[in-house]
Amino acid sequence: MHTAVHPTAATSGAGAAKAIRVAVAGATGFTGQELLRILSRHPSVRLTAATSSGAASSTGARKLPALAHIFKGQITPLDPPSLAQDADVVFLALPDKAAAELAPMLVEAGVRVIDLSGAFRLQDQALRARWYPETRALPQGLAYGLTELERPSVADARMVANPGCYPTATLLALRPLISAGLIAPGADIVVDAKSGVSGAGKTLSERTHFSEVHGSVAAYGVFGHRHGAEIEQGAGCQVNFVPHLMPLDRGLLSTIYVRVPPGTTEESLASVYERTYAGEPFVRLVGAALPEIKHVAHTNFCDIGWRVDPSGRAVLVSVIDNLLKGASGQAVQNMNVMLGLDQTTGLL
Amino acid sequence: MHTAVHPTAATSGAGAAKAIRVAVAGATGFTGQELLRILSRHPSVRLTAATSSGAASSTGARKLPALAHIFKGQITPLDPPSLAQDADVVFLALPDKAAAELAPMLVEAGVRVIDLSGAFRLQDQALRARWYPETRALPQGLAYGLTELERPSVADARMVANPGCYPTATLLALRPLISAGLIAPGADIVVDAKSGVSGAGKTLSERTHFSEVHGSVAAYGVFGHRHGAEIEQGAGCQVNFVPHLMPLDRGLLSTIYVRVPPGTTEESLASVYERTYAGEPFVRLVGAALPEIKHVAHTNFCDIGWRVDPSGRAVLVSVIDNLLKGASGQAVQNMNVMLGLDQTTGLL
Amino acid sequence: MHTAVHPTAATSGAGAAKAIRVAVAGATGFTGQELLRILSRHPSVRLTAATSSGAASSTGARKLPALAHIFKGQITPLDPPSLAQDADVVFLALPDKAAAELAPMLVEAGVRVIDLSGAFRLQDQALRARWYPETRALPQGLAYGLTELERPSVADARMVANPGCYPTATLLALRPLISAGLIAPGADIVVDAKSGVSGAGKTLSERTHFSEVHGSVAAYGVFGHRHGAEIEQGAGCQVNFVPHLMPLDRGLLSTIYVRVPPGTTEESLASVYERTYAGEPFVRLVGAALPEIKHVAHTNFCDIGWRVDPSGRAVLVSVIDNLLKGASGQAVQNMNVMLGLDQTTGLL
Amino acid sequence: MHTAVHPTAATSGAGAAKAIRVAVAGATGFTGQELLRILSRHPSVRLTAATSSGAASSTGARKLPALAHIFKGQITPLDPPSLAQDADVVFLALPDKAAAELAPMLVEAGVRVIDLSGAFRLQDQALRARWYPETRALPQGLAYGLTELERPSVADARMVANPGCYPTATLLALRPLISAGLIAPGADIVVDAKSGVSGAGKTLSERTHFSEVHGSVAAYGVFGHRHGAEIEQGAGCQVNFVPHLMPLDRGLLSTIYVRVPPGTTEESLASVYERTYAGEPFVRLVGAALPEIKHVAHTNFCDIGWRVDPSGRAVLVSVIDNLLKGASGQAVQNMNVMLGLDQTTGLL
Repeated sequence: MHTAVHPTAATSGAGAAKAIRVAVAGATGFTGQELLRILSRHPSVRLTAATSSGAASSTGARKLPALAHIFKGQITPLDPPSLAQDADVVFLALPDKAAAELAPMLVEAGVRVIDLSGAFRLQDQALRARWYPETRALPQGLAYGLTELERPSVADARMVANPGCYPTATLLALRPLISAGLIAPGADIVVDAKSGVSGAGKTLSERTHFSEVHGSVAAYGVFGHRHGAEIEQGAGCQVNFVPHLMPLDRGLLSTIYVRVPPGTTEESLASVYERTYAGEPFVRLVGAALPEIKHVAHTNFCDIGWRVDPSGRAVLVSVIDNLLKGASGQAVQNMNVMLGLDQTTGLL
Repeated sequence: MHTAVHPTAATSGAGAAKAIRVAVAGATGFTGQELLRILSRHPSVRLTAATSSGAASSTGARKLPALAHIFKGQITPLDPPSLAQDADVVFLALPDKAAAELAPMLVEAGVRVIDLSGAFRLQDQALRARWYPETRALPQGLAYGLTELERPSVADARMVANPGCYPTATLLALRPLISAGLIAPGADIVVDAKSGVSGAGKTLSERTHFSEVHGSVAAYGVFGHRHGAEIEQGAGCQVNFVPHLMPLDRGLLSTIYVRVPPGTTEESLASVYERTYAGEPFVRLVGAALPEIKHVAHTNFCDIGWRVDPSGRAVLVSVIDNLLKGASGQAVQNMNVMLGLDQTTGLL
Repeated sequence: MHTAVHPTAATSGAGAAKAIRVAVAGATGFTGQELLRILSRHPSVRLTAATSSGAASSTGARKLPALAHIFKGQITPLDPPSLAQDADVVFLALPDKAAAELAPMLVEAGVRVIDLSGAFRLQDQALRARWYPETRALPQGLAYGLTELERPSVADARMVANPGCYPTATLLALRPLISAGLIAPGADIVVDAKSGVSGAGKTLSERTHFSEVHGSVAAYGVFGHRHGAEIEQGAGCQVNFVPHLMPLDRGLLSTIYVRVPPGTTEESLASVYERTYAGEPFVRLVGAALPEIKHVAHTNFCDIGWRVDPSGRAVLVSVIDNLLKGASGQAVQNMNVMLGLDQTTGLL
Repeated sequence: MHTAVHPTAATSGAGAAKAIRVAVAGATGFTGQELLRILSRHPSVRLTAATSSGAASSTGARKLPALAHIFKGQITPLDPPSLAQDADVVFLALPDKAAAELAPMLVEAGVRVIDLSGAFRLQDQALRARWYPETRALPQGLAYGLTELERPSVADARMVANPGCYPTATLLALRPLISAGLIAPGADIVVDAKSGVSGAGKTLSERTHFSEVHGSVAAYGVFGHRHGAEIEQGAGCQVNFVPHLMPLDRGLLSTIYVRVPPGTTEESLASVYERTYAGEPFVRLVGAALPEIKHVAHTNFCDIGWRVDPSGRAVLVSVIDNLLKGASGQAVQNMNVMLGLDQTTGLL
């Protein structure tokens, strides 16, 4: 059995000394900071390391004013061996290339890894070679962490490839209908997705300058966004995916256009979704009311709505906070599942 | 001959006394104010009336601080007979119902009318009955004012139905390809459109409250937006149209997903667009660079970009300022065409 | 002894049955929804009522999509007698007039009241008559709930007047210096405050229309904002207060200009602040780094920074989330203090 | 006589061949692009050069999509000798250091220079040494281009130092009262200014990243902003100046707190302002209504409002578009004055 940590420790009442030790590599980026925020308050874990390539050794509070009084540790330089030694679970909030190198080493050392980069999301080797050329083989015990739809494999995994933000919102709405045979074949599936700027990360570029984004909207990455490949992998078919940059900081809305078989109604879709997501705390079904980004910002929820017209056209709308359900929130949800904790721990 | 005004007057050098007399009904809404701004500086016309249903008789400057030192006239209550008498051209920036009643009366009185409402945009009587039930018969001499594609009929018209903002952006990108036979039949046409809030007008509603819009994105009117019917009328086929509200004030981006015949390339589309829009001052072709709302805000431009992939999928992106090319700017462009003026007069 | 509830119940381990019963009157406004969000997850209380004047009896989830899966109760019409009977603590998130009428009745009935309106904030009768004419006498056992600076009286109170958002941010920065004698007399105190739109509440007005606020900034209420009187009450001297509306949803920044005695340094101020706020979890001192709204949005923190120049001028900058530390967060903090709970319960 | 250009040429009717030749150095920054936009449509000038340090020789349209169909020239590398030869007037939209070097050379060569940098704004040598150390001596014939208050010296100047955005908005409101003796001595003058992000220029920095600015407000440069020295120079006394960064792209609002002598009323101020700005097309006096950024965005207007209370406190509020009246618009206004043209030419 490959379990390196003892989830029971967290609930044994023996207190902080026995808490699961977690580390965050890449702690000062947007997703890294969200991880620190969540994990600092998570009742079953103890943050033992938070690293940054840019860190000398200034305190986190000084570099991260939003986290003062919340995260009280230090930001330290990344040191893989000590990471493996001091943590039972390591979150990688690193660029693809850095994650591609570090993850296998940590898995090898017996540490559980939750990787927020894209490096290990694609199973097809040719696609991986195109989009993530630095990634070598996929580690044993790897799961794709779309929690609600992959819970058993996440529970057993040694490493989780945490999904991209666009695939998370899109697949949670699309896949239940595909699995239920409700998508008519032969018609294009169009995914028109709209994201806030934090999805582009902290790196400075003309694209993320306030004056370029404010008051504007732009499509980008048409026919050439790596999340397109990830969505197609999850959907099992070709998908017409175009992401757009919106003038907001957090949040993502995916509008999905499909054809459904004759006679399919909004109630047909409702019953599929209700069956799929019964009891799921983080998926909220809003039906014809249609969801809005505002309702999920700063939460780990995914809200899904849908409309069907008599001619057989259906529109699905799915919204998430790209930094939480689309990144750090789902990462902690996956950790909870891996450790046998209630999946909402630390996330409500 | 139905011409009620003498375009030559404007260029005869006889000065302001002979300038074409224009009026704006509904002058304090968003589009009405834009009309005042443009027409106040237009060298060939003289504003003889600016009316508002709410006006007692306060000066425009007091009610419209943004127009102080620009529009120096008075905002007066709407009085149809004097409107017909004092103006050669009347712009209607009114709710559909008010425009439906007023326009035929003005046309009857020999005044040229440019209607920014939706009341006279749909030619099919059944559709009109559904979306604009207050509209009775269409007046003689009515043109649909999508200027670049309908110039001859606009030039001859007694009345122009100024297009909606979504149809303007969408049809300028879509129709040249349809006319050229470049849209493969049998596949859905998806129009995913994103608009700023000013498109919803000045009326207060929960939907336009700052706190609802800021930091959010939402789809609305799925399978039930009247601009969908207008787009289908212009395209001549069914279109899957979903508008979205974005957290910005002005501007509109339409992403259009179509299938093109095998072998069609980006160059194929380029040559169609270049042929269609050669010499057009207000259409800018950006090709694979893709356009952004920021580039057209506060202008009368429509920027169009496109991408094609080898599998025969094409994505068209079209952007406008919804208050200018999508409303008041195109309205003045239409007036210029009707009067035989250079179409850019007052708009650059 | 006036204690109507037994704080020990919350920690007795006897479970939800003995939890303190709390109610929210005015649950669908911005502050009301924040209260529902916090109290639904608060481990020591049980929400027994959430009322709205507009409620027929739709479920909260239907009316409040952001709170689906969080608040599972019903929104009911306001019924004062049952409110008094079913709750130990009642939060009033109502307009001033409604709060002015309801609060005394509830206090009379032995319920503890936390009032988020302005009705009971001013102690001077003449000022109250000017700004809150509907308020009659102040109830016995009333405290002003600026928690960090009024904790003893809050702990003993039967009713708390929860401070306004502008006074909260301003007084937490200003009052320690006044108490320490560090404000030079004879010079004006200028408070230039900037707030997000949610501070204006959900009521629709031209002022809160997205298109009016986006891309704009405006001063309002110069020499005539009731929070000016509240700040002067807390400061004990005249203050030059001008609020501004900013194009953001949440958050408030107060820039305070004072004169300090010769020889005063940034270190002098630091030592006063550190003494005042030692051990306070919700006040973070950032000194010359200066605070930003982004760092406190969606939290109950107040961040305070300051600069002093050799000529004796000092600038203090204080930021809060107007809906949390400036309203609902501080209201729950006050409840915690009243009930003898750790003041951070439910707020981290 | 130092006149290098013949203003009459522009109005002689001899056509474009005799138009005044103008050049823009630094044409791809925010203010450079605004200059191109204005000058391309200016009826009396001909753009003969637009340079950028980064330019190889791509067309402006390709690098500047917003200016396609407007600016039809080329962006070329900066070459001072040819600049001096090909232009009668050169606008410098360059960093301080580059302008400090280039301006004297161009003045020497007989070219009129309008410098949008800060390099030549401060007359006091010690202050200049502190804030603009690269600037050597001030050229002969230099004027400070706060047009409305310095018109005679601008008309006679060989070179204009175009004012900073904060000083423009602040001094247009403050200086008439100082000149009229309406500012009570002995009390601090506080200038709390709020600016959009474009004021920081196109340079990428953490400060201008969309995610840092959106939803936030921050003070910066307290006691250390070079515009403070420029305001004090224009006011002739010490001023307490704190700029703030707002989540908007364009626009600037300055709130000014002063003491006025006993008995001063809002009418007293009105009569001073009306006398000062009688007939000025770009200054709009709004009195107690108070101005808003929205009303001046994308224009060359400065709107000024004021409130006075009986205790002798006055609040002045002044708004401009920082890129136009605060930079490129005022620069062209200054050119018009230098050339004897109507000052509004090209600006309405």
